[in-house]
Amino acid sequence: MQGYFTEQSSVEAVNTRMDKSINPRLAEVMGCLVSHLHAFAKEIHLTQEEWEIAIDFLTRTGQMCNAERQEFILLSDTLGFSMLVDAINNRRPKGATENTVFGPFHVDNAPIRKHGETISLDGKGESCLYEGRVVDLDGNPIEGARIDVWSDNSEGFYDVQQPGIQPKSNNRGIFVTGPDGRYSFVGIKPVSYPIPDDGPVGQMLGHLGRHPYRPAHMHFLVTAEGFQKLVTHTFVGDDPYLESDTVFGVKETLVAPFERIENGSTLWHSPFDFVLVGR
Amino acid sequence: MQGYFTEQSSVEAVNTRMDKSINPRLAEVMGCLVSHLHAFAKEIHLTQEEWEIAIDFLTRTGQMCNAERQEFILLSDTLGFSMLVDAINNRRPKGATENTVFGPFHVDNAPIRKHGETISLDGKGESCLYEGRVVDLDGNPIEGARIDVWSDNSEGFYDVQQPGIQPKSNNRGIFVTGPDGRYSFVGIKPVSYPIPDDGPVGQMLGHLGRHPYRPAHMHFLVTAEGFQKLVTHTFVGDDPYLESDTVFGVKETLVAPFERIENGSTLWHSPFDFVLVGR
Repeated sequence: MQGYFTEQSSVEAVNTRMDKSINPRLAEVMGCLVSHLHAFAKEIHLTQEEWEIAIDFLTRTGQMCNAERQEFILLSDTLGFSMLVDAINNRRPKGATENTVFGPFHVDNAPIRKHGETISLDGKGESCLYEGRVVDLDGNPIEGARIDVWSDNSEGFYDVQQPGIQPKSNNRGIFVTGPDGRYSFVGIKPVSYPIPDDGPVGQMLGHLGRHPYRPAHMHFLVTAEGFQKLVTHTFVGDDPYLESDTVFGVKETLVAPFERIENGSTLWHSPFDFVLVGR
Repeated sequence: MQGYFTEQSSVEAVNTRMDKSINPRLAEVMGCLVSHLHAFAKEIHLTQEEWEIAIDFLTRTGQMCNAERQEFILLSDTLGFSMLVDAINNRRPKGATENTVFGPFHVDNAPIRKHGETISLDGKGESCLYEGRVVDLDGNPIEGARIDVWSDNSEGFYDVQQPGIQPKSNNRGIFVTGPDGRYSFVGIKPVSYPIPDDGPVGQMLGHLGRHPYRPAHMHFLVTAEGFQKLVTHTFVGDDPYLESDTVFGVKETLVAPFERIENGSTLWHSPFDFVLVGR
């Protein structure tokens, strides 16, 4: 009979069970998901024992999640799935600054600071001057662009990971461009750090022979009226993990110059222009 | 550079990151999984918002799991994935009794009972005589086969779901065949029941316009020296959910006769032979 399940008709058996009145996009997404999940099991001839391992892994991944820890996002990140979704939804013309993953460490309402001010409040790390312009695809400066920046400290931790240890809003700030589109601020040359790897995802990385490190990067969230939101990082070009970012966030165009200078206490200079796309 | 992620090379970028020294089967399974997950996102053009919904859903599914509740197995069941893995791993020649899902309600060490004894200890439900033979593919009786049976009670609950309410081992028992391969026992005509639907999986079924019911069935685990283990159910043929089992467990050959009789207090008769395959 039609409703009965067979190995051959497994996808159809499941997908025809959806009611015709449901949200069409949901039907499309679920139908496609079931199709690919079943194709995976068939192609690899998944064993009962492997299924049990997968159920246990997913269960522990969910149970690891709490207000401070999102193990399923780490799983998505380390399988390149987060970057893929980001890429699919942020295709941009050549010349525009590319997107990368948002990450879990952004904070709303960071302090708005004046150009040239420092965001590094703990006095640790190697000081770096960040500067450049926010422009459109034709190179015209964008006035009033908000540049929200954040990075780890010299020990590889974001302030929100160390409340009470780091000063509030350490290595964070928002800068707003004037008519010339320019921004500048002083931060540190960021350092590479491991994603939290004491859970199921860390165990998975271990079994896959992969390290949990992200190459050093400065986060940027750039928004301006009439332009597409830009979520990106700039990466420190000499980082040893540049070609093996555990969350696959690196794009060639996002590797920024970090030039050694000696300007008082400032040791590095990282110029970078952000090119936004109109909506 | 080679290690960098692009939308086009996403699968390769992730899979080449695995170390060459790892377990080859793990590499094969993970490589195939990444390939299908990425193909799914690309084919459906998964949006950032849909990704967030998925992360939230998986997180809540994991958090619903505890010693008594396995929400990820329910998810696997309701997407037909459990039945598919069961089917792939239990392909049998024509004439052999087919497998179906094990389910979460089996208990080790149920009482061994004598042929003809009842397994229904709560006195509820419509009494049914189950009988038949355990044979090999040539029809020869199998001596010493263990037939482990379990079902819900007349209210749709297994004993382990209602400790303190139902008698221990209610609607459970193990029967061992003699030289004629025959078994017989008295149970109830089982009733259809919903899988636990107060969690994320129940919400998903609701959004898909699906009900959470399983058609009435008696579970059988049949084992015998020298033969493949058989995990199956027999289904009550007139059940309204027979063609819409929410876990896709029904196979045409497993729909059993339930004949109305009036033999003292026994109202039903369900004959069924189990055909085992040699190892």
